[in-house]
Amino acid sequence: MKRLLTGDRPTGHLHLGHYVGSLKNRVAFQDKYESYIMVADVQALTDNFDNPKKVNENVLKVVEDNLACGIDPDKSTIFLQSLIPEIAELTVFFANLVSMARLERNPTVKDEVKQKDKFKDSLPLGFFMYPVSQAADILVVKGEIVPVGEDQLPHIEQTREIARKFNNIYGNVFPEPKGFVGDTARLVGLDNNAKMSKSLNNAIYLADSSDVVEKKVMGMYTDPNRVRATDPGKVEGNPVFIYHDIFNSDKEKVEELKARYREGKVVDVEVKKELISAINGFLEPVRERRVKYAGNDKLLTEILMDGTKRARKVAKETMKEVRESMRLF
Amino acid sequence: MKRLLTGDRPTGHLHLGHYVGSLKNRVAFQDKYESYIMVADVQALTDNFDNPKKVNENVLKVVEDNLACGIDPDKSTIFLQSLIPEIAELTVFFANLVSMARLERNPTVKDEVKQKDKFKDSLPLGFFMYPVSQAADILVVKGEIVPVGEDQLPHIEQTREIARKFNNIYGNVFPEPKGFVGDTARLVGLDNNAKMSKSLNNAIYLADSSDVVEKKVMGMYTDPNRVRATDPGKVEGNPVFIYHDIFNSDKEKVEELKARYREGKVVDVEVKKELISAINGFLEPVRERRVKYAGNDKLLTEILMDGTKRARKVAKETMKEVRESMRLF
Repeated sequence: MKRLLTGDRPTGHLHLGHYVGSLKNRVAFQDKYESYIMVADVQALTDNFDNPKKVNENVLKVVEDNLACGIDPDKSTIFLQSLIPEIAELTVFFANLVSMARLERNPTVKDEVKQKDKFKDSLPLGFFMYPVSQAADILVVKGEIVPVGEDQLPHIEQTREIARKFNNIYGNVFPEPKGFVGDTARLVGLDNNAKMSKSLNNAIYLADSSDVVEKKVMGMYTDPNRVRATDPGKVEGNPVFIYHDIFNSDKEKVEELKARYREGKVVDVEVKKELISAINGFLEPVRERRVKYAGNDKLLTEILMDGTKRARKVAKETMKEVRESMRLF
Repeated sequence: MKRLLTGDRPTGHLHLGHYVGSLKNRVAFQDKYESYIMVADVQALTDNFDNPKKVNENVLKVVEDNLACGIDPDKSTIFLQSLIPEIAELTVFFANLVSMARLERNPTVKDEVKQKDKFKDSLPLGFFMYPVSQAADILVVKGEIVPVGEDQLPHIEQTREIARKFNNIYGNVFPEPKGFVGDTARLVGLDNNAKMSKSLNNAIYLADSSDVVEKKVMGMYTDPNRVRATDPGKVEGNPVFIYHDIFNSDKEKVEELKARYREGKVVDVEVKKELISAINGFLEPVRERRVKYAGNDKLLTEILMDGTKRARKVAKETMKEVRESMRLF
C-alpha cells in the first residue's frame, strides 16, 4: 500500500478552503493509501515563533477538524511534527542538497517574500528552510501521495528534486512523491479575494455553527454592478455561485438560480439563503461527527499521541536506512 | 561547574594549528570545566555531502588525536554529533531567530563565500545553516566556555545573539557562551600561508612520525631574500622562528638562533634541525599516549559511544526545558 502524507498548520480551525483543497481527498484516500496526517506545529512556528501559545492552543483543534471531516484514526495516522525529531535530522541533511538560489526561485517562496515585504532583508533563515523541512515531512514516512493546495505544488517539485539527489548520491532510499490538488485548487474568499484564508478573515470554518454560516453568507461579496434585484447579474466568478457549484448538491436548483440571476429575476437574499442551506447541509455530518470530540481534549490527545507513536516508528525505520546509505558512523 | 563545548570536523587527523588554537586549552581546562568535545560529523558533511565515506573514516582518528593530546575520557565527554538529534531539533527552532541578512554579514561566512566562489549562486542552504547549527551544538549542552580558533569567533557572537533572543522570547534557558582563543590565534602554515590547513597541504599533523616531521620542517618556507647562510635574515614573520617561539621550550637557544640568523651567522639547516628536535620533543608525549589507542577501534568506539550517551542525557534535559519554555504541545 502506497503511503500518503499531508498536514495542516495549527494556527486556527480549518476552513472550507482546506476542505476542498486537501481534506476531501485525504478522507477519500484513507482506504486506498496508508495515510499520515501531520499537525505541523514546527512549521507553524516559522511564522509564529514569537507567539508559540497560538500554535500550541490550536493543535487539538486541527485534530478535531480532521476527525470531524471523517478521518478515521484507525485508518489514518494523525501525528505531531514536533515529536518526530527525525524530521529535523533529515532537514539538516537535506539542506546540503538544495541551493539557496533554487529556494529563492521557488514560486511560492517568491510570493511569500513579496507578502512579507515589511520584513525586507530581515527574513529569517527558517523561512527559507521550511520547503526543505516539508520535503523531510513527506520523505520521513516515504510518502508518495501528497494531497495539497495548489500553492504547495512547487514544494512537492522541490521534494522530488531532493529525493532524486539523495538517491543519486547515497543510494535509493526515497520515492518521488506526487502532489494531488483537489477539484477546487483554490477556494475564493467570502470577500472575493482569490484565496480563502484565516489571515484575510474571509473564511467559513468547518467548526462554524449554522448561525455563523448564515451571517457570513449574508455578508458575502456578489456582483458589485448589480444594484437592484431586477438588474441582470454576473454568475461567472461570483463567489456566491462558485460556492453553490461546490457545496450545493441540487444541481438543478443551482442552474435555475443562475438563469434567474442572469435575467435579474431573483433577489440576492434568495440566492444566499439557498447557499446557507446547502453549506449547512454539507456541514451537518461534520457537526455530528464533531460532537464526540469537541472539547474532549483527553480523547483528542490520546488519538494524537497514539498516531505520533506509529509515525515515529516509521520515521525511525527511514532514518536507519538514511544513516546506512549515508554511511554515518 | 561551568560547561565547556568544543569540537573538530572529522575530515582528517588534527594538526599543530588545531593544537595551539583549541586542543591545548581544552586539555588545560578539563579539570576546571565540565567538558564536552564534539566530533562534528554532521557539520563536516556540509562540505563533504558527496563524500560521506571521508567523514565516516575520520571519526575515530579525531577521537584518537584528542586522547593522544591528553584528553581524559573520564573527565571530558567526547561525543558524536550525528547521534544527538536534539541538535537538529534546536537548529530548526533557532533558524527562526536569525535573519539571512545577519548570516550573510557574518565575517567568517563572508570569507568562506569568497573562497567558494566557484559555487557562485549554487551555495547550498546547509552552508548558511551551519553557524546556526553550531549555536545548537554549544547551547544543547549549555556550554559557557568555547575554546576555538580565531575564525570561529563570529560564530560565537552569533550564538550569543541566538541565546539572547531565545531567552527574551521564551524565557531564560541558555547561557551566553564565551569564545576562548589560544595564545596563538592562528598558526602559520609550513608554506607561510596565514593558516595551517589540511586543504592547503601545509600542516604538521599530531600523528606525524618523527621522520615525517623532519622532512616537512626541512622543506619549510624561510626568509626568501636570504640566499646564502652569510646573508642577514629576517626573523619576524618567518614561520621557522614562529614555530620555534611556540614549540621550543629552550627560550635561550631560540634567542641565540635568532641573533645569529639576523647577523647571517647560521645556516638554515641548523635552525631547522633545532626546530625538528623541538617539535618532536613536544610530540613525544603525544605519541606515547597514542600507542594505547592507535588502531584500537574497539576502545575508541567504546569511549565515543560512552561519551555520546552522557552528552545525549544532557541534550535531552536541555530539550525538555526548551519545549516547556516554548510551550510546545
